[in-house]
Amino acid sequence: MRSSIEESVLSRIRPTPEEKEHISGVADQLIAVASGIGRAEPLIVGSVARGTFIRGDRDLDLFLLFEPDLPREELEREGLALARTIAESLRAPYHEKYAEHPYVNANLDGLDVDLVPCYRVESAEAIRSAVDRTPFHTRYIEERIEPYVDDVLLLKQFAKAGGVYGSDQMTEGFSGYLCELLILHYGGFTELLAAAVEWKPRTLIDPGEHRIKDFGEPLVVVDPVDPGRNVSASVSLDRMYEFVELARGYHENPSDLFFFPRPDEVFSHAELEAVIQAKGTSLIAITFSTPPFIPEVIVPQLRRSLDSVCALLERNGFFVNYADCEMNEDRSMLLFELMNTETPRVRRHIGPPLWNQSNADRFIAKYCGYDPGIFAGPFIEDGRYIVEISRKFTNVEDLLRSADVLDVGLGKHVRQSMSGHWEVHSGVACWSPAFAPFISRFLVRKSPLMRILGNGKSRE
Amino acid sequence: MRSSIEESVLSRIRPTPEEKEHISGVADQLIAVASGIGRAEPLIVGSVARGTFIRGDRDLDLFLLFEPDLPREELEREGLALARTIAESLRAPYHEKYAEHPYVNANLDGLDVDLVPCYRVESAEAIRSAVDRTPFHTRYIEERIEPYVDDVLLLKQFAKAGGVYGSDQMTEGFSGYLCELLILHYGGFTELLAAAVEWKPRTLIDPGEHRIKDFGEPLVVVDPVDPGRNVSASVSLDRMYEFVELARGYHENPSDLFFFPRPDEVFSHAELEAVIQAKGTSLIAITFSTPPFIPEVIVPQLRRSLDSVCALLERNGFFVNYADCEMNEDRSMLLFELMNTETPRVRRHIGPPLWNQSNADRFIAKYCGYDPGIFAGPFIEDGRYIVEISRKFTNVEDLLRSADVLDVGLGKHVRQSMSGHWEVHSGVACWSPAFAPFISRFLVRKSPLMRILGNGKSRE
Repeated sequence: MRSSIEESVLSRIRPTPEEKEHISGVADQLIAVASGIGRAEPLIVGSVARGTFIRGDRDLDLFLLFEPDLPREELEREGLALARTIAESLRAPYHEKYAEHPYVNANLDGLDVDLVPCYRVESAEAIRSAVDRTPFHTRYIEERIEPYVDDVLLLKQFAKAGGVYGSDQMTEGFSGYLCELLILHYGGFTELLAAAVEWKPRTLIDPGEHRIKDFGEPLVVVDPVDPGRNVSASVSLDRMYEFVELARGYHENPSDLFFFPRPDEVFSHAELEAVIQAKGTSLIAITFSTPPFIPEVIVPQLRRSLDSVCALLERNGFFVNYADCEMNEDRSMLLFELMNTETPRVRRHIGPPLWNQSNADRFIAKYCGYDPGIFAGPFIEDGRYIVEISRKFTNVEDLLRSADVLDVGLGKHVRQSMSGHWEVHSGVACWSPAFAPFISRFLVRKSPLMRILGNGKSRE
Repeated sequence: MRSSIEESVLSRIRPTPEEKEHISGVADQLIAVASGIGRAEPLIVGSVARGTFIRGDRDLDLFLLFEPDLPREELEREGLALARTIAESLRAPYHEKYAEHPYVNANLDGLDVDLVPCYRVESAEAIRSAVDRTPFHTRYIEERIEPYVDDVLLLKQFAKAGGVYGSDQMTEGFSGYLCELLILHYGGFTELLAAAVEWKPRTLIDPGEHRIKDFGEPLVVVDPVDPGRNVSASVSLDRMYEFVELARGYHENPSDLFFFPRPDEVFSHAELEAVIQAKGTSLIAITFSTPPFIPEVIVPQLRRSLDSVCALLERNGFFVNYADCEMNEDRSMLLFELMNTETPRVRRHIGPPLWNQSNADRFIAKYCGYDPGIFAGPFIEDGRYIVEISRKFTNVEDLLRSADVLDVGLGKHVRQSMSGHWEVHSGVACWSPAFAPFISRFLVRKSPLMRILGNGKSRE
């Protein structure tokens, strides 16, 4: 028996008959056109093929399966040509994109259609690139999912609302295929949530009972079509436990807020000032033009840049309480909450251990003389020489406006953008309408469950 | 061939004939008196017996050896009575002291004499308390040291001048017996220094070639009279390498400064102010009445208190650059150099991991409600709940003046003294004539070699 909350949610997220009809019409059209030209077998994959898409989804994937004896360069050339021809013959505006292979992204009757060439291999273990696996996933799910379509829809909506849906690097959460496998394994949405409440790190699920290796990730769901692959490899420990927390919270207080949460509170400029004042910490942000590439390329670079600048700050005596990054359309931001914006002039410089005699001698030759820039030492600590010398920056803004920032690991496109220009904002000057939602989440930082419960409370 | 520097040093540190005569006269007197009364065998031990004492030393040790069948309580009672009788019959003022056994400390003809009861055991492996081992050490050294007496004198003076002589807990350095063994093992002062230049951590010396276990200390010298004991167990890694550094420095630039260094520079009140100003750090000191016990009891407690207060400071958001302690006659000091004296109001409180469901539920029940004292969270990091709440102290002086200081591990006598009263001094107010030498060493902190070289330079 489905609860009335869930029935009500389903009535809002099941695709409408018109929507289904429209999408399957477009799919039929694509298959018809693709079958008429070229030598590839066309196949609709993804949630549309499986019937597990949520109302309003506009994504459709047409895979073009070539024989595996085709050399890779020919697959790329012929596959791309075929995809282009299909889009053109349907008069759909399109452009080329690049994953492991190039593919075509077209807009057809309001749907976002990917036309993806791949190999038709014997089994998912014989794949030559990651996309070759997708047809096997679609077949596996298609054969089993029919009784559980509503459960998948509920789970996807629940995971989206909780911010844990998506296997991209920004989210590190649950993919659509993973959601389907979890529903199949536990036998329904309610059953999955009851089990997840008890999940421990290194939880192992092996629907195909064919695991061939140990996986190190916190959640392991062995791919039923490939015993060497963990479908939930992308799920971070924190995302896994945010899901567990949501499952516990929903079990205790079921509510439609778990599917349709109230929007997050966004601080005004004045509210931001009051929050910073109360915490006593200091906000500082670096912003620059967002490089003109897709999030899959830029987000990992932003994360890497964030880690590198955090390390730069700590090395320079500025202690980071929290840091995060955001990629907006025009500008990207690295945001830091600091425990201090000034640091003493002196810094420890750790030298070689004394048992490395040649290095120790060089160190001493450099630092033994009288020098007003040497505040203390050289002295010996844990067998190493230590000297206390003058640091370059005692103010954090001076550091972040200096070219030292460009010397840390930023990733290619972020470095290119910052080499042109970057800005440093401090305190309330970090605020802008575009970044206000991000900054508000950053400062309040609540787990998904707390956000769902808390938003309710603070609005009462 | 001894260098002219060393010959000149020896002429200053060899005991004078009058001194030797005086000391051996007192020793003979003690033996004569002790032989006449009681049933213990009297034995002069230590550097006087070995002839390895330095001019001006005033220490003499008379051991009273009892048969091992005497029960321990009788040894303590009869031994102490005998020691008292000896002191009284020589009309020497005395008082009782306590190590593993009680013993008597007397002043006789200007000499500081310890009268120590112990057991005459078969071998050093059969000892019943640590003092029983001393007669074996004396016999071992006496039989071998004669050709190397000058070498021992040079080494002791070299180690004293470098601040690495003494196996007490404040020094963590080289004992007199260890100096003698090292000289015997390497065959002289010059030979020892040449070898020490190359010492690596876990250097092993086993004169008796009878080691029966692995020792974990950085320098291992197996006791030739006890294969299960490391004579240099007290030598810390840093003291060992300070000695190595001195050996290297003396090898490169031999000078009598290595035996008679110029006194350390002591900052005036005004100089201290200028140094703190330049470094940008903050000095803060806790002082209290020195508890009325010997340094062997109090120094370990001061060290423990120092570590505990450092941990308290770090837990409260104050970062310690350096810390040290000093025991003066009247007052003792815990001294801290801090990177900050103010810290933001907010602090991270780390909660349980989410897989511990009952603790996680309790944590959430406590922190999920709206509360102006909760600045951020609960959120999930590395699988644990984190919440950012208000801290008790944002100023370091408020913290150190609070009773929280009495709640950390201080050691019995330090706690007793501080429970009465303690003072907190900040910046130049830490300075006093009594503590000025300690504070100056603390701020300049140079290794022994740097102190020897540096003092020369800054005085030129």
